[in-house]
Amino acid sequence: MAGSGPIAELDWIAVDWGTSTLRVWAIDKDGAVLAKASSDEGMRSLMPGDYEPTLLRIAGDWIGDAREEPVCVIVCGMAGAEQGWTEAAYRTVPCAPLAGGRMTPVRTCDARLSVSIVPGLCQADPADVMRGEETQLAGLLARVAGDDVTVCMPGTHSKWVRIEAGCVTGFKTIMTGELFSVIASHTILRHSVASQGGSAEVFLGAVRDMLDRPDELTAALFSIRASDILDGTCPEDACSRLSGLLIGAELAATRTKWEEGPIHLVGAGQLAAAYATALESAGARPIVEDAETLTLAGLVQACAMMRDYAP
Amino acid sequence: MAGSGPIAELDWIAVDWGTSTLRVWAIDKDGAVLAKASSDEGMRSLMPGDYEPTLLRIAGDWIGDAREEPVCVIVCGMAGAEQGWTEAAYRTVPCAPLAGGRMTPVRTCDARLSVSIVPGLCQADPADVMRGEETQLAGLLARVAGDDVTVCMPGTHSKWVRIEAGCVTGFKTIMTGELFSVIASHTILRHSVASQGGSAEVFLGAVRDMLDRPDELTAALFSIRASDILDGTCPEDACSRLSGLLIGAELAATRTKWEEGPIHLVGAGQLAAAYATALESAGARPIVEDAETLTLAGLVQACAMMRDYAP
Repeated sequence: MAGSGPIAELDWIAVDWGTSTLRVWAIDKDGAVLAKASSDEGMRSLMPGDYEPTLLRIAGDWIGDAREEPVCVIVCGMAGAEQGWTEAAYRTVPCAPLAGGRMTPVRTCDARLSVSIVPGLCQADPADVMRGEETQLAGLLARVAGDDVTVCMPGTHSKWVRIEAGCVTGFKTIMTGELFSVIASHTILRHSVASQGGSAEVFLGAVRDMLDRPDELTAALFSIRASDILDGTCPEDACSRLSGLLIGAELAATRTKWEEGPIHLVGAGQLAAAYATALESAGARPIVEDAETLTLAGLVQACAMMRDYAP
Repeated sequence: MAGSGPIAELDWIAVDWGTSTLRVWAIDKDGAVLAKASSDEGMRSLMPGDYEPTLLRIAGDWIGDAREEPVCVIVCGMAGAEQGWTEAAYRTVPCAPLAGGRMTPVRTCDARLSVSIVPGLCQADPADVMRGEETQLAGLLARVAGDDVTVCMPGTHSKWVRIEAGCVTGFKTIMTGELFSVIASHTILRHSVASQGGSAEVFLGAVRDMLDRPDELTAALFSIRASDILDGTCPEDACSRLSGLLIGAELAATRTKWEEGPIHLVGAGQLAAAYATALESAGARPIVEDAETLTLAGLVQACAMMRDYAP
């Protein structure tokens, strides 16, 4: 992590600064990772003045004191939000995920830093926004070599994205992760729902219920509590059912997107596995893509594009 | 309120003890209200040992010291829950809303009190429960003179109830009120949603959107935030849209119930007015019934039935 001392081969620094997590990579001239670090100092816990000292605490040692010119730092994610480090105005779809000339420069106190933020994307109608996913999409585009693709990016605010001829043509955000969190923690269901899931069968049954009757979501939620009161449902299965209802509702809202062809599923760990299982059970063909790998690949592209644009 | 001194004509005390509110009435031999009091000491804020002192603080003065026999106290609502005063086991539908022989007696320290709790109702499949609404339903049954009716009871946990031949034959709970509260207070939408509603047109547009595309709920929620970021939607209209989406989702989940005939809408104030407007816009025929009047009428029936059963 930090404290490793100056890195002689350091060419630039890649940063994914999300709502709850900060990830930083030291990159060499060939785009290889020399060091990495992460922290839970996400945008949610920071004021605008906190970003530069936080970055220096995590990655300052990599830079060293004697440099001919400032080190390039490319940042994607919520650090570009209005309440973040410096606001990076959205680019409007349809457009390519990244554009070299549209990076937002950030004023810093430390002269060793030259920071730029990748702008997010917005869609006028229906109104929608993303920050950070555009960088992963650029990483994915390099992998799929220009094919038209549909992308599912599960999370706090899941994104479903359509890419055609290298451009993001439209996207849709679904609050699945955040709804799960507030329903499990702040409603009457908190007395019935464990923090870990149980049976995969319960999960897939709930997904199926929502695909069959998506209008039943807000009624089906209370039945989790009632089943506990009347039948003593196990809290892990209640967690699986809540997760299945919300992911099932997301799949019901995106049916036309996954019925047509393969889905690139950008995620990692248990969440990506749950979405993959749900999609497969519905007859879709998910292709799991590692989120961190795509983020880093997109940041490498962003850096190259910016240098091409302003060498 | 309290502190008015003994009431000579007091025959019994009616109590509606809900999750967030306590309402108490002094009743004479003819069922007329002699005094009333209320407090925010609902079930949520009480431990089991708190109920008797709370009731005595609110209504103790009405009773006086010299009585030949204890005063009858009839309680409906969440005081009968497992975490309440004394658990009153659910009665299983189909059944009449009330049954004289099934009241749950409560042990008290004060010998002037003879407390009984009205049991709630449960439904095995789909699992569902109610506490308090059964008493309002008994009050409503007296008004509709045995007709088969469908009842909408909006609230934290809205209930949709079918009554046939004097029996509750089935019901469905929808978490509309609680979802509104947690989404408006605990998600990213809290930055965009005011505590008061704005345009009725926005509200009804959202109701219509959900009736047309109920599968879009979890996607439509995020668009409230995106519209604020991109277009600066007024926070009062954002509140109206959130309310309209959730009430619209409730109407989508209950379409077969309100399409068939008139709906008895049990509520009061702005909430009942919002449901009435939404139902009318969807082509339903709501008949608004005052919730407190029905609760009291049901408690009067419960008292009479208990005395008939055990004179």
